[in-house]
Amino acid sequence: MVVRRRPIKVNEAISRVMAFAKAGPVEHVPIEQSYGRFLGEDLIADHHVPPFDRSPYDGFAIRSIDTAEGSRTNPIVLQVVGEIGAGSVFSETVLENQAVRIMTGAQIPDGCDAVVMLEVVKEVMIDNKPHIVLKRKVKENDNISFAGEDTKKGTIITKKGTYINPGVVAVLATFGYKYVPVSVKPKVGIIATGSELLEVDEPLQPGKIRNSNAYMIYSQVVRAGAVPIYFGQFCDDLDTCFDQVQDALEKVDILITTGGVSVGDYDFLPAIYEKLAANVLFNKIAMRPGSVTTVAEKAGKLLFGLSGNPSACYVGFELYTRPIIRQYINAFHPFLKKEKAILGKDFAKANPFDRFVRGRLSFQDGKLIATPVGLDKSNVVSSLAEANVLIVLPGGTRGYKQGMEVAILLLEDQEGTTLDAFVNTEINSRRSSRHVE
Amino acid sequence: MVVRRRPIKVNEAISRVMAFAKAGPVEHVPIEQSYGRFLGEDLIADHHVPPFDRSPYDGFAIRSIDTAEGSRTNPIVLQVVGEIGAGSVFSETVLENQAVRIMTGAQIPDGCDAVVMLEVVKEVMIDNKPHIVLKRKVKENDNISFAGEDTKKGTIITKKGTYINPGVVAVLATFGYKYVPVSVKPKVGIIATGSELLEVDEPLQPGKIRNSNAYMIYSQVVRAGAVPIYFGQFCDDLDTCFDQVQDALEKVDILITTGGVSVGDYDFLPAIYEKLAANVLFNKIAMRPGSVTTVAEKAGKLLFGLSGNPSACYVGFELYTRPIIRQYINAFHPFLKKEKAILGKDFAKANPFDRFVRGRLSFQDGKLIATPVGLDKSNVVSSLAEANVLIVLPGGTRGYKQGMEVAILLLEDQEGTTLDAFVNTEINSRRSSRHVE
Repeated sequence: MVVRRRPIKVNEAISRVMAFAKAGPVEHVPIEQSYGRFLGEDLIADHHVPPFDRSPYDGFAIRSIDTAEGSRTNPIVLQVVGEIGAGSVFSETVLENQAVRIMTGAQIPDGCDAVVMLEVVKEVMIDNKPHIVLKRKVKENDNISFAGEDTKKGTIITKKGTYINPGVVAVLATFGYKYVPVSVKPKVGIIATGSELLEVDEPLQPGKIRNSNAYMIYSQVVRAGAVPIYFGQFCDDLDTCFDQVQDALEKVDILITTGGVSVGDYDFLPAIYEKLAANVLFNKIAMRPGSVTTVAEKAGKLLFGLSGNPSACYVGFELYTRPIIRQYINAFHPFLKKEKAILGKDFAKANPFDRFVRGRLSFQDGKLIATPVGLDKSNVVSSLAEANVLIVLPGGTRGYKQGMEVAILLLEDQEGTTLDAFVNTEINSRRSSRHVE
Repeated sequence: MVVRRRPIKVNEAISRVMAFAKAGPVEHVPIEQSYGRFLGEDLIADHHVPPFDRSPYDGFAIRSIDTAEGSRTNPIVLQVVGEIGAGSVFSETVLENQAVRIMTGAQIPDGCDAVVMLEVVKEVMIDNKPHIVLKRKVKENDNISFAGEDTKKGTIITKKGTYINPGVVAVLATFGYKYVPVSVKPKVGIIATGSELLEVDEPLQPGKIRNSNAYMIYSQVVRAGAVPIYFGQFCDDLDTCFDQVQDALEKVDILITTGGVSVGDYDFLPAIYEKLAANVLFNKIAMRPGSVTTVAEKAGKLLFGLSGNPSACYVGFELYTRPIIRQYINAFHPFLKKEKAILGKDFAKANPFDRFVRGRLSFQDGKLIATPVGLDKSNVVSSLAEANVLIVLPGGTRGYKQGMEVAILLLEDQEGTTLDAFVNTEINSRRSSRHVE
């Protein structure tokens, strides 16, 4: 018999799932391995950057007062009394009409208050001693990088939850983090179900298809910032399946199954959730694709029952599983980045439910254009390869026209959106998109 | 003595470097490890997708002709003569007024030309035999996913040089690629120079700073798609340095040094290039930061002499080293993605040279806004952490105003730009930016 399920709204589904979100622990990794991770603690500057007043160029450190009368017609001559390599310190104080050769990054010697670049002086020997000739006046503080002008001691340099890009790595090195506190990646188990599935290296057979969902989800898990563990394909026997799920659940923080959640007789997951005594948060969402996405919870661990259809599986993961992973790794903005764009092509099909259409984002003259890619059937694999956004088309009775303003979700972005910003928009409202002139 | 160097334009520098670009070989990796790599060969579909006509839903396969007279007042009754699980095949031909229960993904049985969803029929028993009652007319081909409608056999599914995202992984699995041909990542050596440098775990000393460039570049190399090898910091003795460079060069495809390329007496690299008999492509570029960026070539291998200043080092890598890495891994678009944006904040400083200003991209109402971050001194580390674009400000005598249209380079993007699209824009022209109303 058909079990009629009551669909809930996307935002309601998100809110039920996020009620079980938790933050994972922190581990320390060598700085070389920190790129692409999320910072597990606030980093506070333990010293000024630069730590001392220094020269940003190769040149001569001077006393600006000595140049007060300098001009094209009145060249100033200063005696070069020493030189400072980067990393060295000049031990004396520089006196009237003296200069010190200084390398990029070296500390400004006592007595000096400016640097002149190599290119603007002439080096000459007078009485066998090196001198420079300068045909201009130099202002106090010219060409000096001051202690703390980049970062002051005690400031929070980078916040917990920051995505570690190469610039953040530079900051970490500057402050001596040979080992970096990063959020532990959750372990995400993947089980594929479906008697129609062949393993990736099996030859095709009548009525069967190769299992693409497991590998797709595997990559989505990596992209989201977690560690995937593939447990293989289910057998067709309920008891064995149950044992596999129970066993996998013990080994992971989050468990994903693909397939087996629709209302067909061969779909085991509802029975398994029952046998597990898991708390089913919902089993139907008013969205396409992915309406059969089911999420259950057992002892604080979430089980994501994603659809067996590739696109539905893909969308279900990005909307519901990704934020749980990103919350676990303490990311500031656990949801996909949500922005506005102009629809690049008509999307004629009407649908009473909210649609998440695979699309490709391009930029035209400084504007975001999102264009649906391929067919929008939930079993279409090839258009997933081209997609870098999901176009959010709220349910309604008419289709959408090129030029309308739509919300988009950026799939390859690391920055994300907060829960509030994600749900407090037009996703679930009808016909809120307006036409852009 | 000061060696006067003749600066060349950015585009000229790019063209001299790219003359030595080469494409690397292909290797095969397990599909689980293919995410984030670049495809090393075109992939051609060896079968239709779907491979057979199938049902996209759980429902009943029927003959549409049997429903021609169906309506609310004239319900059609069909006998259910069997069922097909996904992966099974129905061996008989379906006859007049018969239907077959069919699961999502299962092959449409002979005789049938449409599927009705479970939800629109009523299941009843008549003479102890299962029947369905249908109160509507069904059109031929309704709810059928046709063989090849996703991808036709023989089409190029995904091209060599494609970035492998989760959707591409799904395609690879669909076509049976348990092992995926990907471009080999080049080995990129990194050597840091500068007697002012402390290792990341050393305590601060007067006049010295911690080495941040090596770790920053290490991460940039990973982001660009290569394998970094850090050879450590140089000593201060020219002969030892020379041996280190020569030794490192043998172990890598590309060698990066940071520091040691400006005109100071302590800067060894020019002497090392000479001793190596390397072909110096240029040693000065009309740009800020990074004007001292030097590139040399020895027996077909490129040596990138990046500045010791963090921002100059960062920009030099992204403009000149990254495209060489991306070309090696056969990426379609080896250059940073270049787009137009609106300047979010005044940038008052004038400069005779083209500037690449660290900026942060945001989207406002479907438009790209790029805002300079932090101070724009070339030794500033903390603003690098916030930057996700470089704002291209062509040289000129005046500053730039908020609201002007500027070119930007996207640092976190995987898509990139071709050489032509990269250089055939306003980077090197003066004052080409115009004000946007």
